[in-house]
Amino acid sequence: MKEMKIAYKVWLDKEGKAFGDGPYELLRRVEKTKSLHQAANQMRMSYSKAWRLIRTLEERLGFILLERKTGGPSGGGSKVTPQGKDLMNHYERFRRDVEKGLERIYKKHFGAVERKG
Amino acid sequence: MKEMKIAYKVWLDKEGKAFGDGPYELLRRVEKTKSLHQAANQMRMSYSKAWRLIRTLEERLGFILLERKTGGPSGGGSKVTPQGKDLMNHYERFRRDVEKGLERIYKKHFGAVERKG
Repeated sequence: MKEMKIAYKVWLDKEGKAFGDGPYELLRRVEKTKSLHQAANQMRMSYSKAWRLIRTLEERLGFILLERKTGGPSGGGSKVTPQGKDLMNHYERFRRDVEKGLERIYKKHFGAVERKG
Repeated sequence: MKEMKIAYKVWLDKEGKAFGDGPYELLRRVEKTKSLHQAANQMRMSYSKAWRLIRTLEERLGFILLERKTGGPSGGGSKVTPQGKDLMNHYERFRRDVEKGLERIYKKHFGAVERKG
């Protein structure tokens, strides 16, 4: 029999979704590839969808995540801004703590229940 | 400007969703009304949907949540089983700890960011 486990989704909200695992992953790939086009491609997301996502997040956050070189339909080069990088660093550590914290809380309340099963 | 906050969904998983806020609320209302029909109604859920939900959860959890008196299309009376009640109690405490824990983790990592805003 499979074990029970905790499952969750977590994100930052500011009048709507402002940051989360998906945006983090997208920015991480922009950092590696220097290109929103390639980053989107790797995540099987259209460039226009990725671009709209970034714009929406920037509006909600109140700061710019990507410096963009205009490059026509191919998208040009992109670079994560220092504020974007700062958010990524905070989010990374936040996300690790969330994972550890929730696992601990789950075990505290359901560890014994599982052992009964 | 609105403040940023943490948002999340959390549930128990065992080859699929096995328990969460919705099922907890449904069982809580069954306890009060002694009727799955009324509980479902209060949550604007059809009786058949609520019934299927309970059956699915019971299969995944491996124990019975509701004792049912058959009552035709109106649903008859329902009572939460002792194992169901035990799960509700664990879940209640688990859920409170999740809320407190995530709020604490959020403040740890994003409290300072907010103060900048």
